[in-house]
Amino acid sequence: MSDVADRAGVSLSTVSRALRGAPGVAPEVRERVQRAAAELSYVVSRNASGLVTGATGRVAVLVPFLQPWFFGVALAGIGTRLRQADLDMLVYQVGDMRGVEEYLGELPLRRNVDAVIALSLDLDEREIAVLDEVGVPVVFVSQRIPERASVFIDNAAAARSATRHLLNLGHTSIAFVQSADSTGFEWSSAERVNGYREAMAEAGVRPQVLVGESGPRGGALAAGELLSRAEPPTAIFAESDDVAMGVLRVLQRSGLAVPEVMSVLGFDNHDMAELLDLSTVAQPVSEMGAVAARLAVEAVADPAAVPHVELATNLLVRGSTAGPRAASRLVGGNE
Amino acid sequence: MSDVADRAGVSLSTVSRALRGAPGVAPEVRERVQRAAAELSYVVSRNASGLVTGATGRVAVLVPFLQPWFFGVALAGIGTRLRQADLDMLVYQVGDMRGVEEYLGELPLRRNVDAVIALSLDLDEREIAVLDEVGVPVVFVSQRIPERASVFIDNAAAARSATRHLLNLGHTSIAFVQSADSTGFEWSSAERVNGYREAMAEAGVRPQVLVGESGPRGGALAAGELLSRAEPPTAIFAESDDVAMGVLRVLQRSGLAVPEVMSVLGFDNHDMAELLDLSTVAQPVSEMGAVAARLAVEAVADPAAVPHVELATNLLVRGSTAGPRAASRLVGGNE
Repeated sequence: MSDVADRAGVSLSTVSRALRGAPGVAPEVRERVQRAAAELSYVVSRNASGLVTGATGRVAVLVPFLQPWFFGVALAGIGTRLRQADLDMLVYQVGDMRGVEEYLGELPLRRNVDAVIALSLDLDEREIAVLDEVGVPVVFVSQRIPERASVFIDNAAAARSATRHLLNLGHTSIAFVQSADSTGFEWSSAERVNGYREAMAEAGVRPQVLVGESGPRGGALAAGELLSRAEPPTAIFAESDDVAMGVLRVLQRSGLAVPEVMSVLGFDNHDMAELLDLSTVAQPVSEMGAVAARLAVEAVADPAAVPHVELATNLLVRGSTAGPRAASRLVGGNE
Repeated sequence: MSDVADRAGVSLSTVSRALRGAPGVAPEVRERVQRAAAELSYVVSRNASGLVTGATGRVAVLVPFLQPWFFGVALAGIGTRLRQADLDMLVYQVGDMRGVEEYLGELPLRRNVDAVIALSLDLDEREIAVLDEVGVPVVFVSQRIPERASVFIDNAAAARSATRHLLNLGHTSIAFVQSADSTGFEWSSAERVNGYREAMAEAGVRPQVLVGESGPRGGALAAGELLSRAEPPTAIFAESDDVAMGVLRVLQRSGLAVPEVMSVLGFDNHDMAELLDLSTVAQPVSEMGAVAARLAVEAVADPAAVPHVELATNLLVRGSTAGPRAASRLVGGNE
């Protein structure tokens, strides 16, 4: 920009004002600046250049909500990778106001992005059909869509392994706490329940699935329900660390020792999990975002390719899971 | 779009493909679709319309990082309000890769937004000078900049009141835990320390400020240091709930009862705070985002206006703060 200022013989702020058509610049000066900019072939506006190349330089990220921990971490991963590719990140929270369908319906006419990343957005067949109309390449994060570029973890296998960890410790009464409200994780959640059920079936143990609210509040309510049963479980597997935190909180308040009286297992490796000493299934959220961004960049170059990238998870065994101890059972032999 | 399809006598997907210049559409068909769209004055592209009106239909939100709870909530507030104004939200994480200056330096030439919202970005005078060059209206969130549109809380006054709450309970040894690493909250953090110091000075009590890492880890480390002092404090005021959570965790692990042995006070009203029964200063983060978005929309219409909106905070007294109890002092009379 200082080259333009030098060439036109004006100040930097005059260049800025002239190029964006702000008032207070004499027509003669504006023309001089514009000519200088053109001579130096400056990219005055991505808008203008976009009309020539057909590229907008932008990728849209659709999220159901922005508040849960997962989305901040994933967006950070996406944004960082997109910047490396010199792409801007548009963020649309579709969970609250207009909804996916409305957004997708507008997309072909707005034509304001080169690609779309659908972040933990559990789209149904009808919504995916809308994407076909759009024609803008789409990358799915944490959902596996056969005909679309996707990056995901194997939720079912991870939950199966984690459940086996509890079974191997000797637990035979293990409850799974699932949330059913619209946080955008329905698909992951359903897969995790499936994995849990499979492991329980393999072991010949009766599954106990509680469906409730999401987040710590959902976990707290579920823990309350479980603790008021005639025979409470000895282990609780929460579908996410957020939910597990609510469970832990209720146990702590009730003076029930973890893991002596109750084992608690989460899913995510939330940044609070280590501090809470919570055993959990770690999923690489930031990396998932970075891979999604890479796939979006590749999809722009080759929309026909529909790569599927599966990332690994790890069971992190911390202090919240241990074998059930007869001496400290919830009913009867407390302390 | 279906109007265009009807008028051109083609399918919806053909309209989509024709309008975005995708292959597989006969030139004659494409022309027919483009004519139909033009006749119906469809906004084929915001890019094209932007060149005419000078508006891009986009607002950029600059954030230092995306991961902390605060940013997700604020972005949700901003995004929702921008959608109401039919504006798209570009999100730039400037904390990690290029930095504020680089972003701002590019802005005049990229010219891809109508306004910028700087979210908890502690800009120095030099960086603010760069904004002058840019000429795009800027709204500051959670920092008060005299000559710029800003939305904020009175961090100093809120911290002063909160400290008085601890003093009024009878505490005379109150530590403040501050984080100094680059989470983007330096300014708020500094103001909160000021408020704490003022209240302590008014009461004639010696301040004890610990400066360390941010987040729960910072809180945990600070708690460790405080607990290893010859005379640990009876109350800890953490600069944020994230930090307070780390403090609470260490106290819990050490078997030190809150609030009996130690009172803990946070700042934010994080969504985990209620569950943890943490006394805290509630700030309206989502509303702050919504107001910032409104100011951005207004600034586009009238860049000369520099409104300052101060939002109210509330001290939420929960179970983590109470008077110091001689019977359960940390040193000497435990239980």
